Amino acid sequence: MLIITGMPGAGKDEFVKVARSMGFVDVHMGNTVKKYALKNNIKQDDSSIGKYASAERQRFGMDIWAKRTAEDIREPDITIVDGLRNCEELEYFKKHFDNIIVIAVFANESERLERILKRDREDDVKSQEGLRKRDSRELSWGIGKVISLADYMIVNDSTLDEYHKNVGILLNDIINRHSEIKKKLVK
Amino acid sequence: MLIITGMPGAGKDEFVKVARSMGFVDVHMGNTVKKYALKNNIKQDDSSIGKYASAERQRFGMDIWAKRTAEDIREPDITIVDGLRNCEELEYFKKHFDNIIVIAVFANESERLERILKRDREDDVKSQEGLRKRDSRELSWGIGKVISLADYMIVNDSTLDEYHKNVGILLNDIINRHSEIKKKLVK
Repeated sequence: MLIITGMPGAGKDEFVKVARSMGFVDVHMGNTVKKYALKNNIKQDDSSIGKYASAERQRFGMDIWAKRTAEDIREPDITIVDGLRNCEELEYFKKHFDNIIVIAVFANESERLERILKRDREDDVKSQEGLRKRDSRELSWGIGKVISLADYMIVNDSTLDEYHKNVGILLNDIINRHSEIKKKLVK
Repeated sequence: MLIITGMPGAGKDEFVKVARSMGFVDVHMGNTVKKYALKNNIKQDDSSIGKYASAERQRFGMDIWAKRTAEDIREPDITIVDGLRNCEELEYFKKHFDNIIVIAVFANESERLERILKRDREDDVKSQEGLRKRDSRELSWGIGKVISLADYMIVNDSTLDEYHKNVGILLNDIINRHSEIKKKLVK
């Protein structure tokens, strides 16, 4: 099972797109948050969603979003989980699933800001100040630790084409090293 | 001014070697710690040095090792500082020097452990357990944050030759983008 982490705008979504095209099944911790937020009538902007996610972590434990996302996982070996934010979430996945592989995606602040402004997603930050606030929030949850201790790091600092190509190379390498993935992807 | 960060054993020393061969002047926060430890009769093993470094941080502030290392910097533009551990150190450097460029070096735990055991340095950890303790210590100082927010990330996951080559490419790229470095290196 692959788990993706990385700062906002680093390129997690595009990583997952490539993985999906290769047969992986994607689940998104962010979608779990949005689903629960919608049920609870929370506004769908970045700040409201973030506050709600934090409040739920304080109420139910730092691993609550891992726990709720795990309910949607049917084929763990070929699942890619998007959006790991802290060590407690990682511990949850490691306790309940085998062969956890953590992949961190890196881009620096200016690259991330440029991409976020370009993608213009409803729940995204709209400025450098907004991004810094969001970075701080995610770092306060412990994302720096899971990034620094990842099994693989991929740097997304050139073109989208180049990045897609590098993601494909990395995923093929991982598939070849992990028979449990290879068996299910190559039918 | 370049500042290098990364988990223990990631490849900071080898990065600095390449930079030195290209004309950069290297200073090492770790050497500052060792110098002060020696003056104060602290044992030179990893755990004693680590405890001493932490104690001094608690006594004099999180940026104390940046402050003491900065005293040795004569030519900031072409200096490479090895061993950034936390945000407060970074703030110190940013406050006192212009054009700070943070470079993070990444390797995963098994690669780092293999390299550490091979280099057999006196002040190093000797086992996976020792490395995990040291990782935890450095993460508690906030190294995960400076790694995640670096300006450049370089992945050191293949051979030493390949890594040296990639470091050279990255440094040349940085030199070409920064006229203050270029002016002093290309005489």
